[in-house]
Order: sequence, then C-alpha cells, then structure tokens
Amino acid sequence: MLTNIKINEDRLWNSLNEMALIGATDKGGVNRQALTDLDKESRDLFIKWCKEENLTITIDQMGNIFARREGKNNNLPPIMSGSHLDTQPTGGRYDGALGVLSALEVVRTLNEFNYSTEAPIEIVMWTNEEGCRFPPAMTGSAVFSGLHDLSSALAIQDQEGVKLGSELERIKYNGSVACKSRPIAGFIEIHIEQGPILEMENKNIGVVTGAQAQKWYEVNITGMEAHAGPTPMEIRKDALVASSEVVLLVNSIGNNFQPGGCATCGVLEIVNPSRNVIPGNCFLTIDFRHPDDDKLKKMDEILRKTIKLIEKDKKVKIEIKQILELKSNSFNKSIINTIKDVTHKLKFTNKEIISGAGHDAVNINSIAPTAMIFIPCIDGISHNEIEDIHKEDAIRGAEVLLHSVVELANNSSKIINN
Amino acid sequence: MLTNIKINEDRLWNSLNEMALIGATDKGGVNRQALTDLDKESRDLFIKWCKEENLTITIDQMGNIFARREGKNNNLPPIMSGSHLDTQPTGGRYDGALGVLSALEVVRTLNEFNYSTEAPIEIVMWTNEEGCRFPPAMTGSAVFSGLHDLSSALAIQDQEGVKLGSELERIKYNGSVACKSRPIAGFIEIHIEQGPILEMENKNIGVVTGAQAQKWYEVNITGMEAHAGPTPMEIRKDALVASSEVVLLVNSIGNNFQPGGCATCGVLEIVNPSRNVIPGNCFLTIDFRHPDDDKLKKMDEILRKTIKLIEKDKKVKIEIKQILELKSNSFNKSIINTIKDVTHKLKFTNKEIISGAGHDAVNINSIAPTAMIFIPCIDGISHNEIEDIHKEDAIRGAEVLLHSVVELANNSSKIINN
Repeated sequence: MLTNIKINEDRLWNSLNEMALIGATDKGGVNRQALTDLDKESRDLFIKWCKEENLTITIDQMGNIFARREGKNNNLPPIMSGSHLDTQPTGGRYDGALGVLSALEVVRTLNEFNYSTEAPIEIVMWTNEEGCRFPPAMTGSAVFSGLHDLSSALAIQDQEGVKLGSELERIKYNGSVACKSRPIAGFIEIHIEQGPILEMENKNIGVVTGAQAQKWYEVNITGMEAHAGPTPMEIRKDALVASSEVVLLVNSIGNNFQPGGCATCGVLEIVNPSRNVIPGNCFLTIDFRHPDDDKLKKMDEILRKTIKLIEKDKKVKIEIKQILELKSNSFNKSIINTIKDVTHKLKFTNKEIISGAGHDAVNINSIAPTAMIFIPCIDGISHNEIEDIHKEDAIRGAEVLLHSVVELANNSSKIINN
Repeated sequence: MLTNIKINEDRLWNSLNEMALIGATDKGGVNRQALTDLDKESRDLFIKWCKEENLTITIDQMGNIFARREGKNNNLPPIMSGSHLDTQPTGGRYDGALGVLSALEVVRTLNEFNYSTEAPIEIVMWTNEEGCRFPPAMTGSAVFSGLHDLSSALAIQDQEGVKLGSELERIKYNGSVACKSRPIAGFIEIHIEQGPILEMENKNIGVVTGAQAQKWYEVNITGMEAHAGPTPMEIRKDALVASSEVVLLVNSIGNNFQPGGCATCGVLEIVNPSRNVIPGNCFLTIDFRHPDDDKLKKMDEILRKTIKLIEKDKKVKIEIKQILELKSNSFNKSIINTIKDVTHKLKFTNKEIISGAGHDAVNINSIAPTAMIFIPCIDGISHNEIEDIHKEDAIRGAEVLLHSVVELANNSSKIINN
C-alpha cells in the first residue's frame, strides 16, 4: 500500500456539499430526480470537475457517463468506480453522490501525487438508479449489463407520460456510444449503508460480500363489506382482520429466518374505508429478502401455505401475486479481500455485510468482478431528507476506496472470477 | 285489531319506487344527501302526497316535517311515526324512505277506510339522519329531543364549508316552528334491519327492544420509518405490525363479548406508504358496541390494558382517544308489546332484536315512549347501492305498523313509561 498518498479530506467534503446544493431542499435533503434540469446540472458539474482532471468523457446511449484516467498499460481493461447522482424526491445528500465523488477524489489524489496505475481507472455515473421517476430502479447499469433492453428502457414513461429517452435528449445526455458491456477488470462502488448495523456495532467500514435475494408480492383480500353495528361477529368476512393476520405472518416469517431474513408489509390499503363499515376489500404488499436463495424459497412456501389457512379461517378470498424476483448476489472474492486488506492496513474497523438494498454494483456484478464498500449513516436513515453521515466516515471510506483502486489497478491480472 | 282494514300493497310499493327515482344512481341505489336539491325534491313530493291526504304540514327550525291527521280527541298527544328521506352518497332505496312512506301508507289506508283514531297521528320526516354531508348523524331528531343545540346544528358545515342552516334556507325548508320537544304519546319507526339476522333466521318482523351502547376511538401508532432491505428485524419499530396486533385485539374483544358485542376497525391508514419502507406511522379507528353498558365498559378496559402491552412489545407509541360515547337504549315496553301482539295476530314470525345502528328513534326515546319495527334486508346489506328488500317484507312491515299505530292511537293513555 502506498503509505505516502492520502486523499484531501476537505476537497472531498466540499465537493459533496457543493453537489448537494443542486436540488437542495428546505429540510437539508436533495430532490434531484433522474433526467430533470437538476440532474443535468449535477451531470454538468461532475463533467466540469472531471475535465479539470484531464479525464476523457464518454456518454453512452443511456446517458451513463464514464470519465477515464489512462494507466501505464492502456490495453488493460479499466478498474471502474462510481455510483449515481439522481435522488429520491425526498432524498438525502449522500445516497449515490458519495460513490461518484469519492471516485473523483481518488483520481484527484492520484493526479495531485502524480501517480500512475498500471491499468486505467474509470469513474462512472449511472443513469436513473433510484427509479422513482422512471421505474424500475438501476436502469442505466441494467442496460449496460445486458439485463434490460435499451429500447424498452428509453421508452419508460414517468407519471406524466414523458419518456426517459426524450428526457435524455432534452437535457442533451443521449450519448452516441453503445450502452453495452465491455471488459472491466473490476468495479467498486462506495455507498452509505442505508441501515443501522455499522453504526450500532461501531464499525468504520462495511465490506459488502453480496446482496440479498428478494421476492415482492401484491396481495388482494376480498371479504364482505357490512355495517359495523348490526353485523354479528360470527358471520363477518372482515378483510382487514385477514390482512392483519397476513401482516403478522409476514413479520413472524422474517423473525423465524434469522440471521438475514427481512420481511415487510409496506403498503396496506382498505378499499373505501369508513369508520362504521367492516372492510370488504384490502390490498397489501410484501417485501421478502434473504441472503440465501434457498431460505427465501422456504419463506415463500411458508407464506403461501399459511395464507391458505388464513383464507379458510377468516372466510375471505386471498390472491397473492409475486411481482419481483431477484436472486442473491455474491460479490467477487478477490476484490472483497483487497478491500478487507486495505481496511486492516489503514487500521479501520470493518464488518462483512450483505446489502439489503439494490445497487448498480449488483447489476455490474453479472458482467465484471465487483464489490462494494459501505460507510455508516446516522441512525441508519436514508431515502429521507434527514439522511446524514459523519465527515470522518466519508473520509475513511474514500481512503479505503483509493488504496483498493490503486491495488486492483496495479494487479488487475490477479483478480480471479468467483 | 281491525281485521277489515289492510294497507294497499301496490300503493306502498309504487310510492317507494317513485321516491327512489329522486337521486337514483346507475347501480340501482340512491344518492340524495341532506339539504341538496334532490333532498328538496323528495321533501316536496312527500308534502304533495301528505296534502293529498288532507294532512296539516308543519316545518320546524331544523326542517323536520310533521304531517298531522286529526283524531277524535285532538287534545291527546299524537302517535308519531316516520324516519328520514336523506341517503348516503352510495345509499340504497329503502334506508329511511321505508319509514316515512310506510307511515304515509298507514294514513292513506285510514283515510281510504274512513277510520278515525282516538288520538291524532303524525307522520314525521327528520332532517339529516345520515350525517354524511353534515356530521354528526341524526341531527334533526337530536335537536328536537334537546340532545343537540339548535344554533350549533345550524352552524354545521359540509366539506365545502357550506352551513346546514344556509342550505335549509336555500331549499326553503327553514321552518318557523320551534324545534323542540312536545308531548308525544308514542313514536314508532319502521326501518330495514341493515343486518342479516332476520333473513338468516327466516323471521318476518324484528321487534326492536333497544339500541346498543357505542364507543368510538381514534388510534395513532408511531414507530420508525426505515428501509425494508437493510433494517434487521430485531431493531424495527414497525407501526403496521403494531396496528395489526390492535386490529386482531379489537376483533378478539368482539368475539369474547358474545352475545351482543361488536368490534370493528373500519379505517387503517399508513402515513406515506411505500413498498420497501417499514411503516413508521399508522392511524386507525375502532367502533365498539354492546347492548349492555357495563359490558362495553369492560371491553374498553381490556382494550386500553392490552394496548399498553402491544406498545411495549412492539416498541411503538400508541395514542388512543375516545371520540364518541352512546349509552345503551331500552325502548318502551308498552309499545314493544303492542308491536309483538299485532305481529302475532297477523301470524307473522318475529324476533326480538337490538338495533346495532343508530336511528332517529333512539333520540326520540329520550323524550317519548318509542320502539322500532325492523324488516329483513337482502344479505343484510345497507349503505350500499345494492341494498334491497323483498316487496312482501315491506308489506308485512307496513301492516304491523298500521295496526300498531291504530292500537296505540286508540289506547294512548295505556302506554306506560318504562
């Protein structure tokens, strides 16, 4: 490890603060949704900073931006690092921006110290990671990885019927380079944890070993609406009582699949609710996650089997539809080990962690050796304007990224596919 | 009993059908909310029909309409019968209208047979029974009974801020007669059951012995919003899981207070729901009913005690606020016995029943001897455009009303206060 090279703490922090001004909200967060004028402004600033570092900019058909710093041997595939600059409507300052600007800080530091790596380095900004305006999420990296078709991605519409492709054109980020996979020696994304584990366990760095498998469901429960006064308990077909049984079932499945299982009902809606009417129809959603695909399959089986019992017991009809399935992801062991090694050498505490949320890195992992670095976020809060981090955590994360990228770029031939 | 007098089946049925045209909906129901132009139209039609029967019309300050048929001794206080003509937005054809038009049919029949009762008879149409446009419900009868202040009732606003009093003026039903209690020998209201018991038990007539006590609550549950992916089960403060425990608690309290107890959560709302966010805040309503005030008090105690346990167990804050309390009501035994006696003589099956819903009769019961007659409604459905009844049930109900009213009007001095 290059012990004489260090990132510039204030330069990193100031860049994060400057980027957070674009779309800044009154509550201290950021509303910078994909392909809006504010997204364009953040892209322009990012490119300006990259050009100041003499990087070569490439923009592909999905608006993904690559900023390349040549190495000693430019026939080698690059080491790539980055994340996204778009945010949720009530987003925070660091979700995404931390990953892009930490990668920029790595390059700025190497330029400052006039240090050349063997392989080239590329900073990347992926288009439409959040997917709140143009669902689904992580579209830019999905098309790049061949997991999503380019033309259907460009045809995605927002709630007003505006197409992703036409917004890319409007903000002039419809690049000409094909959006498709090419040789990448390794990809590292640094991101806030978006959960409370590192903070609770007082760890500096999360070494992300993979991402959870996910299954999402929609559930419709049909009972019979009736007047809450004159309808005896024993003949009711109360859709909300049945829904509540489902919510508690989901919660107990999560609790019974520890360690690692997560189970959440995020939405529950009564159709035409009224204080003195027994609910006749309810809609709810289920989000199941587990690092182990087999365990998730088992969670699914228990859910479906027990719902049948609730259906019979509560005299309602329950329809369950799986609407999303993501297999679990294991990141690249060589890169994980490099990150862990650097963390030890820097004398930072670390913990192996599984990502609960989706990230662009999960898509890139399907085409190139990939891993992630997490830093703690305060109270585990994200997708919220009060999302926050400690400056020293951002600095530690960027240091780990710097030395990991240099190590990998100088030894890219040693990265072994899992 | 006057065996030679019978109501005119088709006249009753045709009047119900004609009234149902005012505010008729595509699905076969009625939307004729209080003090709208349609309400005025139904009042005008009712008064036209009353005038054809030579009745004397009085309109009071709340727009309650009284149509009087003199008796042999007009110093006696009247026997009164009626209900309301306003409906829910998705109301049915018979909820309310049946009570007004059955009372009209009683008078039409007596006129047709040229039969004079001892005491006078009054048909009444109470203003704003439903309370959906101008909450709370049953305002006209409440002001008449001294249970609600006139000026505050006139000041009730709808969702657009329009006052009940100014709408009364606009439709020209702001009468000059004081809206206040006066001597009434007895009050009978006929109404659809709004529940399934008579139909299930195959009974023609419900002899209503009283109304349930009620307690309504609003509950706010505060946990902590967090990302459904990276937040471990054991540290969650899931407001929806806690809400589901409350829903099942409410349901089990209802089941444990049989016979007679009813317990319903009609509304449950998650604040800012999202599929992959653990719900942080929920709102729900509870509707508790029991014929016995002491049992209802016990239900309340168990609710509050158990909610404390849920609060602790689920690591959330639960605030519960009682927003309504109605004591139980016992109707007048003399009138109940008269109805029962008439039903037997007409060879109709009957069942003593407690009203689960509120009715104008419950208010009038506080100032005059009162009881109610229920007829079955199909599948127990009301407050729904598909609300329906069988013609023969309407006819049986009107027959029972006719002979009960005549019996009471001829023997009003024998009505004993409970």
